[in-house]
Amino acid sequence: MINDVSKIITNVRTTTPLIHAITNYVTINDCANILLSYGASPAMAEAYDETYDFASISSALYINIGTLTKEQEQAIIMAVISAKNYNVPVVLDPVACGAIKRKMDVINRIFQLGKVDIIKGNLGEIKYLAGYESKSRGVDSIDDGNNSVEACESLALKYNCTVIATGAEDIVTDGKRTAIIKNGTKLLTLITGAGCMVGALTAATAAAEKDKFIAGIASVLAMNLAGEHAEKLTKAPGSFRVKLIDEIYNLKEEDFLKEGKVTWL
Amino acid sequence: MINDVSKIITNVRTTTPLIHAITNYVTINDCANILLSYGASPAMAEAYDETYDFASISSALYINIGTLTKEQEQAIIMAVISAKNYNVPVVLDPVACGAIKRKMDVINRIFQLGKVDIIKGNLGEIKYLAGYESKSRGVDSIDDGNNSVEACESLALKYNCTVIATGAEDIVTDGKRTAIIKNGTKLLTLITGAGCMVGALTAATAAAEKDKFIAGIASVLAMNLAGEHAEKLTKAPGSFRVKLIDEIYNLKEEDFLKEGKVTWL
Amino acid sequence: MINDVSKIITNVRTTTPLIHAITNYVTINDCANILLSYGASPAMAEAYDETYDFASISSALYINIGTLTKEQEQAIIMAVISAKNYNVPVVLDPVACGAIKRKMDVINRIFQLGKVDIIKGNLGEIKYLAGYESKSRGVDSIDDGNNSVEACESLALKYNCTVIATGAEDIVTDGKRTAIIKNGTKLLTLITGAGCMVGALTAATAAAEKDKFIAGIASVLAMNLAGEHAEKLTKAPGSFRVKLIDEIYNLKEEDFLKEGKVTWL
Repeated sequence: MINDVSKIITNVRTTTPLIHAITNYVTINDCANILLSYGASPAMAEAYDETYDFASISSALYINIGTLTKEQEQAIIMAVISAKNYNVPVVLDPVACGAIKRKMDVINRIFQLGKVDIIKGNLGEIKYLAGYESKSRGVDSIDDGNNSVEACESLALKYNCTVIATGAEDIVTDGKRTAIIKNGTKLLTLITGAGCMVGALTAATAAAEKDKFIAGIASVLAMNLAGEHAEKLTKAPGSFRVKLIDEIYNLKEEDFLKEGKVTWL
Repeated sequence: MINDVSKIITNVRTTTPLIHAITNYVTINDCANILLSYGASPAMAEAYDETYDFASISSALYINIGTLTKEQEQAIIMAVISAKNYNVPVVLDPVACGAIKRKMDVINRIFQLGKVDIIKGNLGEIKYLAGYESKSRGVDSIDDGNNSVEACESLALKYNCTVIATGAEDIVTDGKRTAIIKNGTKLLTLITGAGCMVGALTAATAAAEKDKFIAGIASVLAMNLAGEHAEKLTKAPGSFRVKLIDEIYNLKEEDFLKEGKVTWL
Repeated sequence: MINDVSKIITNVRTTTPLIHAITNYVTINDCANILLSYGASPAMAEAYDETYDFASISSALYINIGTLTKEQEQAIIMAVISAKNYNVPVVLDPVACGAIKRKMDVINRIFQLGKVDIIKGNLGEIKYLAGYESKSRGVDSIDDGNNSVEACESLALKYNCTVIATGAEDIVTDGKRTAIIKNGTKLLTLITGAGCMVGALTAATAAAEKDKFIAGIASVLAMNLAGEHAEKLTKAPGSFRVKLIDEIYNLKEEDFLKEGKVTWL
């Protein structure tokens, strides 16, 4: 399995998938830059008049609902309908779904009209979506981690998709297969956008790999390993953010094989 | 007094206030990252459908009118009404209020329907709001500094709030007490967003400290000291911006006591 | 000629032109920071209620249609009308014009109601606008370069403006005079926004120099030289992006004279 995971970065660099991202204004630049460093080609079309057309020619679609203006909501709905019609993989990042009521209205509409291949959230968001008791504060999870795996698997089965829950340990599951990833660094919580960047990378891996469970592990592991490498160079968040992009660019297949701490449940 | 100022950074790091920021798209990422480095938890909800709910659960609200789309205007009005109803401290950054007529329309509406605890602008903006002759160019102040303290005090008394005017020297006043801060570096004018970041930090200090005059000094001083520390590491603006975030993270209580150049009028 | 090109950076630093930029949310921060590093004063007013007024007081206007929300479209139309009425130079960046049908609708409206002094695009975009066969993918050109100079000259004559086409080699032409610039580094394609930043810088040079052909060469060369200087310091994209801003700040007139590889056709 880890062999399949490790090969994806080469697949992405060889095929340069076109990633259509509709994402929040806070970290939109980070998402574009990390996709470029990873070897993908980002495009952030978000106008209502453009997303149906643009999603149809994309290799994968990343939807992040962090700063959800009215036009973004409309543009997202058009994009997910297009992705369904044109069979484009979709990654959904349900930012703050448990903190703000309106987020769930939009998420429900996405599931009603589109098709989601991977849901990537923090643990609080994933448990909330799965209908489990969860704790969030603003856009952050402060969940204690009870029943985490169970919640992820239940959500994966509910929507017939892969689920990624990020946290101190990361969980990836398609409901039947489950992996726990123990790499990473606390520095990733000291910059904004680590979660968004994982989501964007997941769209790239989903474009390059049919098995979305494997794709999900590959993106989470890429971020965690790059974070560990960057942490060796600096402990301060401003510099860490810069080095993180560098280290995504420097990742090699063997890093995944040698350093990946993946437990297969 | 300086003892009270110095303690705020520890208070923020201990309590991790949730800062709701509605801000311009130019420096929204910088504002989020500097809040994280300072120890606060940023959330940039700006959709009209979300800001009333989100402001109500926040520790403080930062309003920056730099890139004021129609939806942002509406979202800001909802947020300030919510902040008033739920007693959430509000920091207003009246970007370019003297340069663009429409900005004053929105600012007047904010004062009509909301409650502002701290106004933080550059000297040109503050003097304009106070009804004094002032000089601005685009988003920058080119004011000569005549009657600066008088203008700040007058504005503070007019709106019963604390006023921060940034410039070569920074002024903080609640109309009765006034402080002049002589720290900082010219490099802060060579990057975009130094003013916005001070505003965001002010929301964090306002969340942690009841006395908004003290809170205002704490945020201005934090930015100035981090700027001085970063300047020791680099003189070029791209690198300076990165180090500035690092040095906010590295700030210690004793830095304020040892290095703060605050004159109490 | 290269003497005229080299002097522009000093002119900008002396006059600090006020650059009004309406640009995409992905790289809006980079555009503002590179303008500051170059010596200009950026202002990113993009609200429909503000752009007519703001364009009228600006030294030059930069229009980038990368993330074209409905309000941005309306704001752009108001800005270009204002620029025409007040004789403010306009630089147009026709991002993805060949990939998304709606972009051309907006571009046609800009030419109908406004006046464009410089069109700056990648080669695929420029050839598409000129009516030549071209190849793009998302926001990137993958054009082979056939008939490039001919296409640029034809477009310049069609709209009576200067045309900049970026690529492995960069072309600048006003239809009668044409220059090929062979500086630069591949690292500029590994970060997002290199093209946008050239566009923003072009607005600064267009504000400082009447001859827009010379202005176009100056901005392209500035970016390429800064890129070469940054590449000497780092090969990784995250760090490169930081150093690029530093090296724009460090550029000297003699760098243009000594290092510029400009072929005058």
